[in-house]
Amino acid sequence: MTAANPLFYLHTPNNGERWQALFAAELPDFDVVAAPAEVDPARVQYLATWRPPEGLFGRFANLRAVFALGAGIDRFLQRSDLAPGVALVRLTDAGMAQQMCEYVLAGVLRYQRDLDCYARQQADAQWQPLPGRAAADLRVTVLGLGEIGGAVARTLALLGYAVAGWSRSPRELAGVRCLHGWDTLPTLLAATDVLVNLLPNTPETHGLLNHERLAGLPKGAALINAGRGEQLEESALLALLDAGHLRGAQLDVLGQEPPGKEHPFWHHPAIVLTPHIAAATLPGPSARQVAGKLRALLRGETVPGLVDRERAY
Amino acid sequence: MTAANPLFYLHTPNNGERWQALFAAELPDFDVVAAPAEVDPARVQYLATWRPPEGLFGRFANLRAVFALGAGIDRFLQRSDLAPGVALVRLTDAGMAQQMCEYVLAGVLRYQRDLDCYARQQADAQWQPLPGRAAADLRVTVLGLGEIGGAVARTLALLGYAVAGWSRSPRELAGVRCLHGWDTLPTLLAATDVLVNLLPNTPETHGLLNHERLAGLPKGAALINAGRGEQLEESALLALLDAGHLRGAQLDVLGQEPPGKEHPFWHHPAIVLTPHIAAATLPGPSARQVAGKLRALLRGETVPGLVDRERAY
Repeated sequence: MTAANPLFYLHTPNNGERWQALFAAELPDFDVVAAPAEVDPARVQYLATWRPPEGLFGRFANLRAVFALGAGIDRFLQRSDLAPGVALVRLTDAGMAQQMCEYVLAGVLRYQRDLDCYARQQADAQWQPLPGRAAADLRVTVLGLGEIGGAVARTLALLGYAVAGWSRSPRELAGVRCLHGWDTLPTLLAATDVLVNLLPNTPETHGLLNHERLAGLPKGAALINAGRGEQLEESALLALLDAGHLRGAQLDVLGQEPPGKEHPFWHHPAIVLTPHIAAATLPGPSARQVAGKLRALLRGETVPGLVDRERAY
Repeated sequence: MTAANPLFYLHTPNNGERWQALFAAELPDFDVVAAPAEVDPARVQYLATWRPPEGLFGRFANLRAVFALGAGIDRFLQRSDLAPGVALVRLTDAGMAQQMCEYVLAGVLRYQRDLDCYARQQADAQWQPLPGRAAADLRVTVLGLGEIGGAVARTLALLGYAVAGWSRSPRELAGVRCLHGWDTLPTLLAATDVLVNLLPNTPETHGLLNHERLAGLPKGAALINAGRGEQLEESALLALLDAGHLRGAQLDVLGQEPPGKEHPFWHHPAIVLTPHIAAATLPGPSARQVAGKLRALLRGETVPGLVDRERAY
């Protein structure tokens, strides 16, 4: 380690050594140090982290850029320790879009092909074919059409589903009926068989999936939430499932993770719960991407995923 | 009904009226009659059926062609009532390939994305991310590369899986490592994470998935069987699951359908059982296809799906 090299600091909840090795290989002209190793805080100009604890940023007076090792940056905003002048950069795809396509597709297939019903029939030793639905007749709506949501919508369309996509600002995607703006949402929800939420968590989308909107889905509709738990009003989902209005939900995120042992979703027959694994950060592609973005930033070039902290995304 | 029209007879286990209306629309120059309506047996030249009861064919002395309303024709062969001179024609795709892609994909995703493990964790109120596998690292082998198996292999390759395809005779498919012949099978099985059987049921493939071949899969491999139940040695699967050699199986077909209430697969934690719904015959596309094949047959043209009864497929 020479004092002449800029310092790149890693703060990850686990696999610190693996991350350090990957980043060191990508950034040979930087000193790459991973927590819990001690560093001179004044030397830390670049920081990559995931789930940063409160106060982390405030320790480093000369911080220039923070790289979020994930696509969602809601946990990086609205905190007093991240100075306004520090660049905040999130991952863009880095293998997450493919994973999210898989996760969403598994849920869509479950409801389209009645795999939830067949599991119940199997438990009852009952062999009874159900009418089923063709992909072209299943109306899937994807909320959020960024790198990840856009890839999910395109893949579902390619596989023959009747896909609509919704976003805040206008988008165009091959094979996808694209709508935008809050005004269009109620009508769209009323024509949705499977609702897929992939929106970023912002003040605007917080609590988006409330009772009114979920009740606006047709009877028998299903929900896939792989955005953020804070976007779902959990009690509303529970009430609509128990009333028989909604058919089921596949949830990868919850308001509190992990949920307490007494959380009603654990043992609900219509809920499939996964532990925030829909689109994991892949260390190899992520380290490569962050290194590339750091160099672009240093050259003064446009950096994909540079967060507009006013817009919160 | 005029005696001048040739007679097209329908024998389906259910939905007779719907089938009759569809065929009547496709074949206005035929008299289309559906069982249980009585007809003069001597007038029946063309017959479309699914799961034909023993003795059905023998009733019609002037039968010229039988159309199977499914892709598998094992139940039409080796029966004394079907004269050698009668053409036997099976459905080719007719919407079944898409359905089979969906069914297989649901199973592949279950094992790739650990959805079986997460279901067990959910039952135990346990929130524990697992390492997971990238699609490119999951070796899926598709046995049978006809219209349906070929479509399944291509779709899986398109979605990024490491797909191998195996067939009796040589095939070429974009993105799929194609192997053929019995000699290649042991090595292929030893390098397979998810084995997908879509072979037709013939004397050659009967009992194909026996203890030796299933034991030849690597530890932790999974099976998807949507071919025929007769191709799987059920006791071997059970033994290998219980020994922890195989991870799980998604089965759409069984040796006896429906299975008896005491069948061990109903309540086995590693088996997902569906009631022969992977690729259902769709009445609309099927009636259209059969009508087209009948006209091609009458014009003396090549008919896709005309069965070679020696080869049994």
